[in-house]
Amino acid sequence: MRNSWAISEAVADVAGVDLHLDLSGPGGVRAALIRALREAVRSGRLVAGTRLPSSRSLATDLGLARNTVADAYGELVAEGWLTARQGSGTRVAPRPAPRPAARRARPVPAVARPAYDLRPGSPDVSAFPRTAWLAAARRALSAAPHTAFGYGDGRGRPELRAALADYLARARGVRTDPERIVVCAGFMQGLALLGRVLRRRGIAAAGIERYGLWYHHQALERAGLRLSPLPLDEHGAQVAELDDRTDLRAVLLSPAHQFPTGVPLHPGRRAAVVRWASRVDGLILEDDYDGEFRYDRQPVGALQGLAPEQVVYCGTASKSLAPGLRLGWLVLPEHLVDEVLAVKSTGEWGNSALDQLTLAEFINSGAYDRHVRSMRLRYRRRRDELVAALAGRAPHIGVTGIAAGLHVVLRLPPGTEQDVLRAAAWDGLAMDGLSRFRYSEGEDEAEDRGERAFDGLIVAYGTPPDHAFPGALEALLRVLPGPAGG
Amino acid sequence: MRNSWAISEAVADVAGVDLHLDLSGPGGVRAALIRALREAVRSGRLVAGTRLPSSRSLATDLGLARNTVADAYGELVAEGWLTARQGSGTRVAPRPAPRPAARRARPVPAVARPAYDLRPGSPDVSAFPRTAWLAAARRALSAAPHTAFGYGDGRGRPELRAALADYLARARGVRTDPERIVVCAGFMQGLALLGRVLRRRGIAAAGIERYGLWYHHQALERAGLRLSPLPLDEHGAQVAELDDRTDLRAVLLSPAHQFPTGVPLHPGRRAAVVRWASRVDGLILEDDYDGEFRYDRQPVGALQGLAPEQVVYCGTASKSLAPGLRLGWLVLPEHLVDEVLAVKSTGEWGNSALDQLTLAEFINSGAYDRHVRSMRLRYRRRRDELVAALAGRAPHIGVTGIAAGLHVVLRLPPGTEQDVLRAAAWDGLAMDGLSRFRYSEGEDEAEDRGERAFDGLIVAYGTPPDHAFPGALEALLRVLPGPAGG
Repeated sequence: MRNSWAISEAVADVAGVDLHLDLSGPGGVRAALIRALREAVRSGRLVAGTRLPSSRSLATDLGLARNTVADAYGELVAEGWLTARQGSGTRVAPRPAPRPAARRARPVPAVARPAYDLRPGSPDVSAFPRTAWLAAARRALSAAPHTAFGYGDGRGRPELRAALADYLARARGVRTDPERIVVCAGFMQGLALLGRVLRRRGIAAAGIERYGLWYHHQALERAGLRLSPLPLDEHGAQVAELDDRTDLRAVLLSPAHQFPTGVPLHPGRRAAVVRWASRVDGLILEDDYDGEFRYDRQPVGALQGLAPEQVVYCGTASKSLAPGLRLGWLVLPEHLVDEVLAVKSTGEWGNSALDQLTLAEFINSGAYDRHVRSMRLRYRRRRDELVAALAGRAPHIGVTGIAAGLHVVLRLPPGTEQDVLRAAAWDGLAMDGLSRFRYSEGEDEAEDRGERAFDGLIVAYGTPPDHAFPGALEALLRVLPGPAGG
Repeated sequence: MRNSWAISEAVADVAGVDLHLDLSGPGGVRAALIRALREAVRSGRLVAGTRLPSSRSLATDLGLARNTVADAYGELVAEGWLTARQGSGTRVAPRPAPRPAARRARPVPAVARPAYDLRPGSPDVSAFPRTAWLAAARRALSAAPHTAFGYGDGRGRPELRAALADYLARARGVRTDPERIVVCAGFMQGLALLGRVLRRRGIAAAGIERYGLWYHHQALERAGLRLSPLPLDEHGAQVAELDDRTDLRAVLLSPAHQFPTGVPLHPGRRAAVVRWASRVDGLILEDDYDGEFRYDRQPVGALQGLAPEQVVYCGTASKSLAPGLRLGWLVLPEHLVDEVLAVKSTGEWGNSALDQLTLAEFINSGAYDRHVRSMRLRYRRRRDELVAALAGRAPHIGVTGIAAGLHVVLRLPPGTEQDVLRAAAWDGLAMDGLSRFRYSEGEDEAEDRGERAFDGLIVAYGTPPDHAFPGALEALLRVLPGPAGG
């Protein structure tokens, strides 16, 4: 701080009220006077109808030019705090009474902060590549044309769409070009957009997998779609059912790694669902949320590569980088592009051009591949530790979905899921049970074509930061039920 | 490039088709084989049903380990490109025929690129403070907690809400605290959210100003609201009309600087609209899109400061920084917070945590004030040049709305607006006429309570980059109509 002498506060009596002028704020003495008078009226210290001293008299008291005070009065009249009438001087304006139920201190919603978190949905955000991201941001912002800071079009930045077209072809076998990619603020926004487009096409119902994320289901239901769940087995969704459900012309699937069961869709079923879509002119919404993370062999390529005109490929940076970016992308069949843009280009669905430019540079520079590779190693190591610990200390617990992704499913003895979750919560371990992800049709559920509901746990080993993983694993082992009869 | 010798391509004959392996790509020879086979199937060179050579035989041809080929076959079976059956070997899987209306080259929509652009809506984006923004991003990302990269809550980052609460109180006279601020992806998203909340409250109609932005009107109409325009005069919207329109319990206003006419709402009307809202338990949506840019005295404070429980203050970074950020904010009455969050927290309306953190740091460090101050000088200089040029060379043209903002309105002789716009377009100058912003009720418009429609031009002197402003000004002067009879 500069060492200087300056008047930083002045006090005047205005209609019996002490008026403190804080001269350290911006805008000089006039601004300070405006702030002080405004605050006095606002707080009720200067009540409605009170006549203020003349500008000349207050100026003298404060040692200011008369015009300064007159300007301040004028400004507050313009803002509606004061009134000025010929002959009656400047007065505090009448104000409506404040609402009775005015301010209460709003507590920040109590976010339960468990000691350990193995709930699915988030990658290990402690590993966000801050330095590499900033370096990409610097290069991207230096190179960006001025127009990148303007409104832009509904498709998203062309730099990012070009980078994604190349990356998705290379890494996920997606067939596309930049003109068929629409960037959106995360998968959820993409799903909401697609739901509306389906409704505009007159499609009233969509198939989903029996187990999935309830907020995905809600997004489709908010768009006005009726949902029809497909049963799941060890080969993924039983897509043959689509042939019997003649009201369906769209289906949401997670073919590379079904969420939450973790199985990939069987090759025969991949072919079958594409045949179905081709026959009924239907659409497959492919949720490829964690397609990059496959540990024991090459990633399973995207279904979209088989039938680009029947599949909408939905990708996201939420698992590969961070949910906080709110960046996802749709790869659309040619015939759907204009309809999606008609919904998206209304101005409500935008997202940051700066992050889009940065992600494009992050991908093009190879930093994205490096980050995915390093995270794949990290997650695989955790998965191996988890599987080994379970084999050693809870061999009676079945584990599925271990080949890919950021979570596995533990099968539990029937009727034990809620007890295990309660024990976990008691121990400071946040987890979700399989039943939470089962789509329920309410009244009809009892008649669910005899599908069995399974007891199980989702163990999202990708969620905690590295340092917390061993503790989380120990906590998990403590709360698992013993062998039958044990 | 490293100067090295390596095999970068291999060729094999597969069922009579040349298979080119590009070994320069990622993932080694197995990945190259998978890509080559996938592409051959995809392109139709290997047709459905074709039997592939045994893995042993292809491995010999290519000089690879047999397992590499077997793995590649297995992967492509998993992806649905190939089928494998005991006894019949590995074959190309049947594929649905491609849609007849498959790919056409989609031309990039022809964005008219005029030589000069004086259309409103965008600040001078060439002045985006890239260096200061990156410096703030570096500090913000270094300091951010890991959880900032996760999903976050619907309100937006707490760092930004705290910075905004402080800034808005100081600069705009807004009364708030961080818990009542909701960050959104630009004003348009905020308006869409508010429209839905109004409908949920059973409010079916909203007042608007007769002149305004059609996409704001559309956002409210999409939410299901019927719109009822208020006449405008030189004191702003005639809010006294609200008392007669008993079906209205909400009104969208731009009190600091009416868009597009440029007048501030008269002090008496500020008080009157607050009284109306208080009496009918109504809501005022205050669009404060450019409140920072006032040239000849202190900014007019926000209406919200008069009645925080009746006004939703809507602010944006689109004019003060850049539309490409897609960042705006709502300051909500206490009683509205939960309802807005109920709509916003569905996951479709997120925006980048990184930009939010950066903007918070940008504000807190004083960089935002500095940028606004420097832009205010730049815009004021342009405004002065514009006003002086008009006074000198087109003194018969009336200019209004010069005290603030990024545009003025030129009044034109009745019936000349379209001619001037055509002449401007011919001269490479993009401009909008006043009539474009007039809310039309369709059939009823002829009966518009006798309100006069004005011919006029919006001249958004804030839009062009500095170097283009003199040329834009000259082009404008060329196309203005001469004095009456001239």
